Amino acid sequence: AKLQLIGNANELCAGNAADGYARSGHHIAAGRTNPGPRVSAMFSTYGVGELRAINALAGLYAESNPVVSLVGTPSRKAWAARRTMRPVHHTLADGRMEVYSKMAREITCAQAKYHEFSTPIQALEAYDEALIHCMTQLKPAYATIPCDMFDLEVRSQPLEKKLSIRLENIDAKFVDSIVTGIQSKLHSSRRPILIVDGLAYPFDLISEARELSQYMPSAWFTSGKGIVDEVRTSGWVETLSGPTEYSSSADLTLMIGPLSADTNTAAWSAIPHAPSIQFNADNVVLDGHQNVGSGKMVLRHLLGILQLGNRRVWMQNATSHNRTTTTSVHEHSPISQDDFWSTMSSFIDPNDTIPLAKGTPLSFGGPPPPDVQVVASSVRCSIGQMLPAAQRIALGKRCVHIPGRTILFEGDGSFQTTCQALSDIIRCRLNVTVFLVNNGAYTYERWLNGMEAGYNDVPAWRYVDVPEFFGAHSPDNKYPVTSARVKTMQELEDVRKDKRLNNGQGLKVTDVVMDPQDIPKRAKAGLLRGRDAVMSGR
Amino acid sequence: AKLQLIGNANELCAGNAADGYARSGHHIAAGRTNPGPRVSAMFSTYGVGELRAINALAGLYAESNPVVSLVGTPSRKAWAARRTMRPVHHTLADGRMEVYSKMAREITCAQAKYHEFSTPIQALEAYDEALIHCMTQLKPAYATIPCDMFDLEVRSQPLEKKLSIRLENIDAKFVDSIVTGIQSKLHSSRRPILIVDGLAYPFDLISEARELSQYMPSAWFTSGKGIVDEVRTSGWVETLSGPTEYSSSADLTLMIGPLSADTNTAAWSAIPHAPSIQFNADNVVLDGHQNVGSGKMVLRHLLGILQLGNRRVWMQNATSHNRTTTTSVHEHSPISQDDFWSTMSSFIDPNDTIPLAKGTPLSFGGPPPPDVQVVASSVRCSIGQMLPAAQRIALGKRCVHIPGRTILFEGDGSFQTTCQALSDIIRCRLNVTVFLVNNGAYTYERWLNGMEAGYNDVPAWRYVDVPEFFGAHSPDNKYPVTSARVKTMQELEDVRKDKRLNNGQGLKVTDVVMDPQDIPKRAKAGLLRGRDAVMSGR
Ligand SMILES: Cc1ncc(C[n+]2csc(CCOP(=O)(O)OP(=O)(O)O)c2C)c(N)n1
Ligand SMILES: Cc1ncc(C[n+]2csc(CCOP(=O)(O)OP(=O)(O)O)c2C)c(N)n1
Repeated sequence: AKLQLIGNANELCAGNAADGYARSGHHIAAGRTNPGPRVSAMFSTYGVGELRAINALAGLYAESNPVVSLVGTPSRKAWAARRTMRPVHHTLADGRMEVYSKMAREITCAQAKYHEFSTPIQALEAYDEALIHCMTQLKPAYATIPCDMFDLEVRSQPLEKKLSIRLENIDAKFVDSIVTGIQSKLHSSRRPILIVDGLAYPFDLISEARELSQYMPSAWFTSGKGIVDEVRTSGWVETLSGPTEYSSSADLTLMIGPLSADTNTAAWSAIPHAPSIQFNADNVVLDGHQNVGSGKMVLRHLLGILQLGNRRVWMQNATSHNRTTTTSVHEHSPISQDDFWSTMSSFIDPNDTIPLAKGTPLSFGGPPPPDVQVVASSVRCSIGQMLPAAQRIALGKRCVHIPGRTILFEGDGSFQTTCQALSDIIRCRLNVTVFLVNNGAYTYERWLNGMEAGYNDVPAWRYVDVPEFFGAHSPDNKYPVTSARVKTMQELEDVRKDKRLNNGQGLKVTDVVMDPQDIPKRAKAGLLRGRDAVMSGR
Repeated sequence: AKLQLIGNANELCAGNAADGYARSGHHIAAGRTNPGPRVSAMFSTYGVGELRAINALAGLYAESNPVVSLVGTPSRKAWAARRTMRPVHHTLADGRMEVYSKMAREITCAQAKYHEFSTPIQALEAYDEALIHCMTQLKPAYATIPCDMFDLEVRSQPLEKKLSIRLENIDAKFVDSIVTGIQSKLHSSRRPILIVDGLAYPFDLISEARELSQYMPSAWFTSGKGIVDEVRTSGWVETLSGPTEYSSSADLTLMIGPLSADTNTAAWSAIPHAPSIQFNADNVVLDGHQNVGSGKMVLRHLLGILQLGNRRVWMQNATSHNRTTTTSVHEHSPISQDDFWSTMSSFIDPNDTIPLAKGTPLSFGGPPPPDVQVVASSVRCSIGQMLPAAQRIALGKRCVHIPGRTILFEGDGSFQTTCQALSDIIRCRLNVTVFLVNNGAYTYERWLNGMEAGYNDVPAWRYVDVPEFFGAHSPDNKYPVTSARVKTMQELEDVRKDKRLNNGQGLKVTDVVMDPQDIPKRAKAGLLRGRDAVMSGR
C-alpha cells in the first residue's frame, strides 16, 4: 500500500479531517467494491496531540465511522520505568503514563498498545486485530507505537495475510425468517412510512434505501438528507422536522440507519409513533427485538421479492409533497436565510458532496438537494467539524475519482473554531467550494438562549481575504482561487451563475452576509422544540 | 463577586486562556495579598466543548495551576433516564453519559457533578469542596451543572461562608526541625548550587528564590528563567542546558519549585548529581524524604537566620559568568536566531511578562531576561498554548493593574494551531506584543527528526495582515495596532527602537523571517541530548 502523510495545521483539525476522509467513502459513486468501508487513519503525538484530537474521535464513535488513531508514545524503556523515573515530556509528570490510553478506551472499540507486547510480531498482530474491530464495528480504534520503534524493520509477510473480516451475515435462514416477518407486517400495513437516516451512509445502505423509497412514502431526519430524491422516486418525500399529517397517522415505520438523537429529530418529535422496523449495519430490529445479522442482506432480499402491488394504495394515502417554489425577491434585497437556501438548492448538482455544519446550515433550509451526498453530524454536533472534514472529503474524492464538487456550508462561528483547515486545503490544492453563512453570530444559540446576548456575537473577520491570508497565490492557473462577498440577492445570483465561481475547480469562498437573528423556516419548528426540551429538562 | 464571561473563538483556546489567566497571578507584582492563588475558571459545553479543552486541563494538572472547569450538561431528567432514553446530542449515542466526567477524573483533583446530588445545597457544598481542593492542591477541578438548573435561584448565604483553606503549615516545630537539617548541610557545603525552576511560580516562591540566590551560586532550568537575575544578585547565575563545570562539581543542590522533566533539563543532564533539598508548595524533600509542610514557611524561616558568612567562599568557587555580548552584525544581514535573541534581551524590560512558546522560542536564546515573569511550559509542552495564554495574561494583568507588557514569542507552526486567539485579543482590546518566529518550519522538530522532511514545513501565511484579518480596524487611537515584517537586522533594530512598536500599547505583531534550520546556540546542546534520549529509547 502506498501511504501518504498529509499533515494538518493542528490535531483538532486532523481528527475532523480523518472523519471527513472516512465519510468520503460513503458517496454512492465511491462504489464499495471492496468488502469493507473506507478506513481513515490519523497519526498524532502522545498526550498533547492525541488529547487535542479526542473530541473528533468521540464523534467518530458516536456516528459509526472507522478511523485508526495511531499515537507515537515515549520509548519502551520509559514505559517500563514510568513509576520511578523522572518526568518525560507530554506526561502529567506523575508517572501515570497510561492515562491517555485509558481515556481513549472510552471512545474507541479496540486498543493495541505496542509497549504491552514483548515482540514486534505480537504487537503487529494486535494492530491487525484492532483494525478488524474498527472495520466490523465501524468505530475508531486506538494504537500506539513507542518512539524507539518507529524505524524498526519487520518482515512484510504479515501484510500479505488477508484480514479475516466477516462483514455480512449470510446465514440464509436468518435472512429468510426476518424477511418473512417484515413482509407480513408490510402486507397488513395501509400507511407505512420509510425513514432514511444518516447512518445509512456508514452502514452502506444508500442504494437499498433509494430502491425501497420507490415502494412507499418516504422521509428522512436531518442527517438523512440527499439519499432519497423526490424526482427520482416520483414518490412522496419530506424532511421530518416534527410530526406531519402522514407521519403521525402511519401504521408502520421502516427505518434505515436511524440515529434518533434529539438534534436529528426535532427533539424526538419527528419520530413516528407507529411500530418500527430498523435496518442497521449488523442487526435488524423487529418487534422491539434486535436480531443480529446484516441489515444490508435483509434489505436486498426484501427488495428482491417486494411486489409493487401495494405501492399505488400507499402513495395515494400520502399527500403529495410540493417542492417549495422560490418566491421572487427584489434583486437589491438583503439575503434572507430562506432565499439563500432556495438559491442554493439550484446551485447544487447530483453527485456533489455537501458538508453541512452545525448551526443554521445543518437544516439546509431549502428544498431537499437532489441525489447528493450530504455530510451532517447527527448527534455529536461539534461546531467547526466540517471545514477540516471538507478538506479531507475533497482529497478522498480526488484519490478515487469520485465525481461531483465538495460544497461546504458553514457559519462564521463554526468557521472561526477551525479556520486553519483552510490553509491545508490550499497547501494540498484541493477543490472546495465554501459558502460562509456570515451572520456575525452564533445564531442557532441565539434561538436557544440569549437572543440579544453579547456572548452570542461572533467578531467580524475579513473573510474575503481568507484565501490570500492562508497562503493562496492568485492568479494561479493550475489552482484557481476566488472569493466574493455578497449582501444582496442579485449578488448571490451572480455567484450562482458565474462559471468561475460555480465550477468547483480550486478554492471558492463566498462570504454571504445575513441577519444575526434570521433562521430558515424549515429549521425553526425543530429548533424551538429542542429549546423547550432543554429548558423544561426533558 | 462580579463575574464576567469573556468568550473564546474555540474551546482549545479557552482552556489555554484559563491557563494564562491563572499564571498572570504569578507575576511578582501581583502581590499575593490573599492567602491563595489566582484561580481561573472556564465554562464549556458538555462533551464536544469539554473534550476540545481537555488537553489544556491536562497541562494545568501537570504544571500545577488551579482552574475550575465548569461544564453545562444535559438535564437531570436525562441523567436519570440515560440508560434507556433516546440519544441526547453531544453524547456518544449509547447511554454512557458519564464518559466525559470519567475522562476528566484522570486529570483533575476533584469533581463535583450536580446531578449526583438530590438538593441544590448539597451540590453547592460539593462545588465549594472542589474549589478548596483546587486551591490547595494547585490542580484543576471539574464541576458540572445540568442545563435545566442554570437559572435556579439559590440563597446567597453559602457565599458568605469563608472557604476553609489551610494553605500553609505553620507548625513551628516542623519548620524548626527541617531548617536545622538544612542549616547543617549548608554549613558543611563548600560548593552549593541553588536551582530555581518554573514551579516556583505557582508555588508562590518567587521572592524567596530571589532572596536566597543572593547567598549562593544560582542557576535555573528552562522554565525557571527570569526569576533570578545576575545584575540584581551580583552573584553567579546561568541557564543549565547541560552539566557545567560548577554544577557537576557541586556538593549540595537546593531546588525551588523543580520540575525535572527531560524537556526542562536537557534530557535530565542538567540536574546536578549532588544530594538535593527540594522546596515545593506543600512539602520539602530532605535526604530523599518528603516532609509534608509549607515550603514557603521553611524558606522564610531559613532566610531569617542565614548568615552571609559562607557567601564569599561560595561565590569564589563559582566561575563568574559573563553575559554574552552582542556581536556586531551587518545591518543588511538576515536575522539569525542568536542575533534575534540578543536583540530581544534588550527589548525586554523589568516587569514584562514573557510567554515563550514550545519550539525554538522556549530556550530564549539570548542572555537571560532580567527580572521578568517568564511563562513557559516545562513538561506538557503543547505547541500553540501560549497565544491564547498571552491573551488572558494580558487581561489578567489589566484587571489588577500589574505593570509591564505582555510579550509573546512564538513560532509559526505553533501560531497556526491557535491563531484564532488573536481575534479574542482584538475583541477584548488587549495589550499584547507578538514576535512571530517565522522560519517556515517546525524547526525544533527538524532537529529531532527529518531535517529536510516535507512534513516539517509550515505553509506561509500573510502574517503582516494578521491584525486586519482578525478584525482590527486601523487607525484606531484607543486601540493602536501595528504590524511589521522584518528580514534584516536593521529592520529588527528599527522595531526595537520604534516607540510605536515597543510601547506595549495595543496589539503589535512583528513577523520575523528566519532560516528554517537555524536554532539558538543555547538551545542546541539540550536539544541534541533530548534527541539522543528519544532515539536510543532512554
Ligand atoms: C464544539 C462546540 N462548541 C459549542 C457548541 C454549541 N453550539 C451549537 S450551534 C452553535 C452556533 C454556531 O454558530 P455559527 O457557526 O455561526 O452558525 P449559525 O447558527 O450562526 O448559522 C454553538 C456555539 C457546539 N455544538 N460544539
Ligand atoms: C500539540 C502539540 N503537537 C505537536 C507537538 C510536537 N512539536 C514540538 S515542537 C514543534 C514545532 C514547533 O514549531 P514552531 O512553533 O514553528 O517553532 P520552531 O521550532 O520552528 O521555532 C512540534 C510540532 C507538540 N509539542 N504539541
